[in-house]
Formats: sequence, C-alpha cells, structure tokens
Amino acid sequence: MSLKNDLLLRALKGENVERPPVWMMRQAGRYLPDYIKLREKYDFFTRVETPELACEITLQPVDQVGVDAAIIFSDILVIPQAMGMKVLMEEGKGPLLPTTVKTQQDIDNLFTDDVENRLGYVMNALSLTKKELNNRVPLIGFAGAPWTLLCYMVEGKGSKTFDKAKQFCFTQPELAHQLLQKITDVTIQYLKAQVKAGADTVQVFDSWSGMLSPADFKTFAQPYLLQIADAVSTDAPVILFPKGSWYALPELSKSSASGLGIDWSLTPKMAREMTDNSITLQGNFDPSKLLSPIPEIKKEVHKMIDGFGTQRYIANLGHGILPNVPVDHAKAFVDAVKEYNNVTVA
Amino acid sequence: MSLKNDLLLRALKGENVERPPVWMMRQAGRYLPDYIKLREKYDFFTRVETPELACEITLQPVDQVGVDAAIIFSDILVIPQAMGMKVLMEEGKGPLLPTTVKTQQDIDNLFTDDVENRLGYVMNALSLTKKELNNRVPLIGFAGAPWTLLCYMVEGKGSKTFDKAKQFCFTQPELAHQLLQKITDVTIQYLKAQVKAGADTVQVFDSWSGMLSPADFKTFAQPYLLQIADAVSTDAPVILFPKGSWYALPELSKSSASGLGIDWSLTPKMAREMTDNSITLQGNFDPSKLLSPIPEIKKEVHKMIDGFGTQRYIANLGHGILPNVPVDHAKAFVDAVKEYNNVTVA
Repeated sequence: MSLKNDLLLRALKGENVERPPVWMMRQAGRYLPDYIKLREKYDFFTRVETPELACEITLQPVDQVGVDAAIIFSDILVIPQAMGMKVLMEEGKGPLLPTTVKTQQDIDNLFTDDVENRLGYVMNALSLTKKELNNRVPLIGFAGAPWTLLCYMVEGKGSKTFDKAKQFCFTQPELAHQLLQKITDVTIQYLKAQVKAGADTVQVFDSWSGMLSPADFKTFAQPYLLQIADAVSTDAPVILFPKGSWYALPELSKSSASGLGIDWSLTPKMAREMTDNSITLQGNFDPSKLLSPIPEIKKEVHKMIDGFGTQRYIANLGHGILPNVPVDHAKAFVDAVKEYNNVTVA
Repeated sequence: MSLKNDLLLRALKGENVERPPVWMMRQAGRYLPDYIKLREKYDFFTRVETPELACEITLQPVDQVGVDAAIIFSDILVIPQAMGMKVLMEEGKGPLLPTTVKTQQDIDNLFTDDVENRLGYVMNALSLTKKELNNRVPLIGFAGAPWTLLCYMVEGKGSKTFDKAKQFCFTQPELAHQLLQKITDVTIQYLKAQVKAGADTVQVFDSWSGMLSPADFKTFAQPYLLQIADAVSTDAPVILFPKGSWYALPELSKSSASGLGIDWSLTPKMAREMTDNSITLQGNFDPSKLLSPIPEIKKEVHKMIDGFGTQRYIANLGHGILPNVPVDHAKAFVDAVKEYNNVTVA
C-alpha cells in the first residue's frame, strides 16, 4: 500500500527527489468550475460537513490540475465550532462569529474534549478521500494556528488590523494565554486524529501572524506553534506557515516541524539564508502572478526553483490561490514545476 | 521667523536633539472628538478642499495631543483626482473610483500639467496652516507613492490582494510603467509646490508596497520612489514610507531621502542593522498597541526608543492611528516620548 507518488513526503523528510513536489494552498475550490457547480447546490458548511462532497472537492485538483498532493477540503473555523461557537459563512463575504470571546466565563464555556468525535465529519472525509486517492498522492490535513483562530474568536470576523483581538491580548494577556492554550490543546487532538484518519502530513496555517510585531509573535503565536509541532511531529511531518512573519523563520526552522511555508515577501535566497538546512521550505509564488501570461508564469516558476533549489523544497504559492485564476494558468504553474529540467540531486 | 520647536527637522538632518521628536501618522482626524464633530457637518472632500477646515483639522492634534509636527489634512487620492479621475469617498467604507485605468487611451487621457493650480486648495491649506501654526512646530506635506496610487487607479477601490492592479502590471508592464511615470511626474510637481506653499518636509506613503515581492518592488515601486526623493530632496527633506517592504530598507536607506518610515514587523534593532547610518528612521509602534493600558503604552514606548536610540530617530506609529484609540492614550504615547529620560546626546 505504498504511495505511487511520495515526492511530498520524501521532500519533507529531506530525502533526495527527482524533482520538487508541487501543490497549491486552497487548490480545492474557488477557481475550479466543478467546485463552483457544487457551490451552487450546497452551502459552505454542507460542503465541509458532508464527507462525500469534501472528498469530491479534495480530489478535483489532483485529477484536473495534476498536483502532487491532495489537501482535505475543510475550514480552519471548524475548531471554534467544535469548541461551541457559532460560525456563519456568507458566500464571498467571509466568516461571521455572532458571539465572540470576551471574558473568563466565555473561555471557561469552551469545549476542549471529544474533538475526534465532534469533528467526526472531517475524519470521515479524510478516510474516504484516502481510500478514493488509492495511493496516488499523499493527503494533507490542516488546522488554523492558535493566534489566527483567536483573531476570529475575539474579533468575530475578518479585519484589516484585528485590533479588537490585539486589544484583548494587550489588556488581558492572562485570558489570552488561557484561550490560546485551550485552542492549542484542541488542535493537537484534532491533528493527531487527522493523521489517524489518513492524513500523511499536516499543515498549520497562521494566516494572521504577520499582524504581530516580532516581540508579540514570540508571546502570542510562537509558543503555541511549537507546542503543536512538538506534539504532532511524532505522528506525521508538520508544516508551519506563519504568513508575513519572516522575522520568525530562523527560530521556527530549528523547531520539530519538517516544513516551513514561505510567502512572497522574501526572495527564495533570503528564505534559505534565514533558515536552518534541516528544514524543508515551501512556497512562495505570489498568487496574483498566476494572472500573468502563461509563458511568464513558467519563467517565474523556474526562477523560483533556481532560488530554492530542487532538494528540501516543495513548490507552492505564497498564500491561497485566488478565485479569478484561470484553470489553465494553475495547470501551467504545476506543469512548470514538473518540467523544471535543471535537476541536481544533492 | 525660525521655528520654536524644530526637533523634527534637526532629526531629519542628523543634527543632535535633546530628545526624539514625535508625531503620529493620521494624527489629524478619526479618533479626535473635535474632528468627528466636523465630520458630521461636512463631507470628506469638503473637509479636504476647504482650506479653513483642513487647517483647523491639521492644528487639532498639535493643540490637543502635543505632537512635535503638524501634517496637513488631505488624502493621497487628490492626485488621481487632479489627473482627471473621479474619486468617491463613503464614510467608513473607503474610496471608490468608478472609472478605472485599463488602456493606453485611459493613460493618455490623464492630465499631468498645472498640478499646483489643480490642487490649489492644498496649497492654500498649507499656507494658511503655516501662518496659523505661527512657527510652533514644522508642517509636513505628503503624497501617495506611485505604486500605491496605481493600485487605486487600476483596482478602483481597496483590496486585500490588489490582484487587478498586479494583473495590469504583470500583463501590460509597458502601460504600467507609463502610468507610474505619469504619477511620478505629477507627484514631483505636487510635492515641490507643497514645499513652496509652506511644507517644511514631505512624506511619501507607499501603503501597499508590502504586497509586492522584492523583485516586483524593484520593478514597479522603487525606481519611482527614488525619482521623487531625488527631485524633491533639493527643496526639502523627504521621508519615504514603504509599508511592509522591510526587504527594501537597505537600498532605500542609501537614497537621497532623509527619513525612512518603519512598520512594526521589524524590531528597532533589526531596522537599525538593515539601514545606513546616514538616514533617520521613523516609527514603529503597532497602532493597535495604543489600545493597551496607559502604563503599558509608556513602557513599550520607552523600549522602542531604547531600541532606536534618541538620535537620527523620529518617534511615530508603524502605520496610521486607529479610529477607536482614546485621545488620552494617544497623548500618553506622545508624553512617553517627551518623558524619555535616558537621553544620550551622541
């Protein structure tokens, strides 16, 4: 039952690969016409909570774009839901949490037990997808990082500044740490259960970590990312993606994580210089650059691989794919990685 | 007619100061009750285009918060307006440009002449404010950077990704450079006219430069920032603020600008290490941190000054002040700089 294409896992382990593996953050959904058809029939949480639909959506980019890994279709806000919070999702408008966390009582009321069962639909989607993939490519599980989830749980919605979330942390740091620890505990259970259900590796998305100063990142984000990496890396390789927090890359590269996501605010060369050789880097194509003409995309992808090198590297975007990217442009990105011919096995 | 408080100008020239000067980006407006009263009576562009109102708003933080400089109340989008574009501003919703730049024809149609006259109301506001200030503190003029203005002129409104603006640059780079050059030419005229009308120094806001990769910043942002710095620094000291573009600080610190704005994604120490000794650094307090308790604000301000040092330094926020900051917190920020007692004249 070994994987036919295990490039991603070998790259994460630091083993030699013939070429870098490639996948795209948010590859399942948004820009794919077959996904848009499903979106017209089923609302967001029906798609997330119905294993057959989540599985179908997860497989679409594997079949249609040719990526080297599947990432389970789900959402980072299933954790606040499992902890007892109401999460609404309006198409094209982003999430809304009508009741936010404000007080000790609010934190005490959050559930932290029985995560595997509360999020059983994710586990079922993973098992089903693992079966349907039939060992073609690895399956990636994921969760939101504690700081990013705190942002939504306190702010109640997206924000340009997340100043309510920060105000909570700056004025009530003890409550903030209690909340971050609760989210961390739940996330560790959740990611371990995902591995048990079939995930070959897991990624932790700290989408809003770049809003924090280096000092605040060390206080409110880093300790919890490291706890998760330490606890889960015994079960499967962990990829950390602290978007915008270039300043944290040197320290995170020395953690128990196997991979580190890089956004496009760094050149590949800067990212290599900042990080320990023992970690695999993943990234970092500007998602907007997939709107360039196809020959330009291919040229830029090859430049990116030149910069990172072919080993200990996973080709990816620097953040999620945009909804307005034509499918053939996404495919050109993937093809460009596969066609990269300057392969040097270290 | 010399200034009673010229700390800002001396810091920009690299002269010794008794303590660092302090002002706050977007200090005129938003969080000030007296501004909010005016906002209820006059719409946005009436406030911008009426010299008496712009002057009154500009003076409010000098009188009420005690900053060491006034910055003229205006908006970066007066440049697209002067170039012939329609700009609407809905309170709390951000700007809207109903007709965007798409084609060669659109660019050819933009005005680039007679800027001083087209934006005469800004010049009148500056002259009046200069007079009313009565040499108490320096007066700062400003403009948006060409890349940031292109973002609005092509995208038509704010955006999380500015992917339409980027698509324009990536698919039609020749048009993009024509547009950027036109904006640059107008901005140089505009800033020189501001100095003639009374501005003692000018700041160029590249609010969206951090959306660009280092390579794209060098292509679409940096050359135009440098042109402006070179052309205007003969008239008055220029401060460049490339928000989010930490990667560009080493090169920009060697430019003809006198000051460089720093956001809070760097520690003061990192900023000093990255930049040439011959430039004055300005920043970099996280605006959300003004929502902390006052003793915490003061402690953090002193830590920030410890990091930057007292010379070749202008205390400021890392971006604009937030609308929900209590006035006494803004005042605590300013007071903390004035109270900093570890003064070491270099």
